[in-house]
Amino acid sequence: MQLLKEKILNEGEALSETILKVDSFLNHQMDPVLMKKMGEEFAKRFEGKEITKVLTIESSGIGPGLMTALTLDVPLIFARKRKSLTLTEDLITSSVHSFTKQETNTITVSNKYIVPGDKVLIIDDFLAVGQAARGLVDICNQVDAEVVGIGIVIEKAFQDGGKELRDQGFQVESLARIQALKKGEITFAEEMEGATIHV
Amino acid sequence: MQLLKEKILNEGEALSETILKVDSFLNHQMDPVLMKKMGEEFAKRFEGKEITKVLTIESSGIGPGLMTALTLDVPLIFARKRKSLTLTEDLITSSVHSFTKQETNTITVSNKYIVPGDKVLIIDDFLAVGQAARGLVDICNQVDAEVVGIGIVIEKAFQDGGKELRDQGFQVESLARIQALKKGEITFAEEMEGATIHV
Repeated sequence: MQLLKEKILNEGEALSETILKVDSFLNHQMDPVLMKKMGEEFAKRFEGKEITKVLTIESSGIGPGLMTALTLDVPLIFARKRKSLTLTEDLITSSVHSFTKQETNTITVSNKYIVPGDKVLIIDDFLAVGQAARGLVDICNQVDAEVVGIGIVIEKAFQDGGKELRDQGFQVESLARIQALKKGEITFAEEMEGATIHV
Repeated sequence: MQLLKEKILNEGEALSETILKVDSFLNHQMDPVLMKKMGEEFAKRFEGKEITKVLTIESSGIGPGLMTALTLDVPLIFARKRKSLTLTEDLITSSVHSFTKQETNTITVSNKYIVPGDKVLIIDDFLAVGQAARGLVDICNQVDAEVVGIGIVIEKAFQDGGKELRDQGFQVESLARIQALKKGEITFAEEMEGATIHV
């Protein structure tokens, strides 16, 4: 998605070989017009899938997830990383390990909102090793809901998550795929020539 | 806001005299069309305020905040409750105590995104004693940004936060004001006759 790639080049910052900071439009400040266009793009890429629910994970998935749900006219459910006072009924949980943060979270979804027969589109901000996406897939599997696709804003294509999920048969659509990060340097996967752009 | 009040009556659940569960459309599952209408309503209520930023707090403020920001065509910033790997520059922090959760969080905003001269609209899902709103006001004060208003989805009018903020001169707009909660019973503040509706 060209607009997103321009944003990443203009405003993103490679903090290390694995960490891309996009706080100016996705992870802290959000650009609502970009979010809306991303939602429309995800809806287009998963057209005809008869999606009944969009599932994401707090907090940064909520923006793109909500705009996708708005375009598709279906509810958004965001998995909780933290215990909620009002999440009191039967819960579906899964463990998600974050390699960058070196912590394991239990993510939680109420089985009132993801139900058997649902056709679920998973949306998340980043895909690296794929732990968060797999946790969301696991939650859908536990209630016999079908995952019809996985939409990712930024895929770190130099890590294995995307390949593994595609090998398992999932349609994974990433709006931007990063081939490599070096401090101060971002390279996209799609661009085969003159790929390295210094930012 | 009539549509919201109907949603609260039809789907909300008073878990106690202070806790209202609205997980089906706001705090876990989100109704994107309702979020959009709430964003438009907030934009209308603060019309002419020359808002430059919408500020909210993760996670449940992001939905209504993003839709308000979209309508106003300004960025949304969501304060972080947890440490973020990429929030690395100069940070503005404030302490927010949650009486229901009995915990104190440090909320964090980068001073790159809320800057002197900004006219900030604060949006949040709930207003009870007003700790979260006051934390966001405090963050704006620290960088000489002006708070031009506070938009709340559901105000617990039986608690003091709204009154105190209005007494301090803030324009506080709540889309639904709850007068009283009893287990299984929700009463709105605006309805002076036949106010109690059993749900």
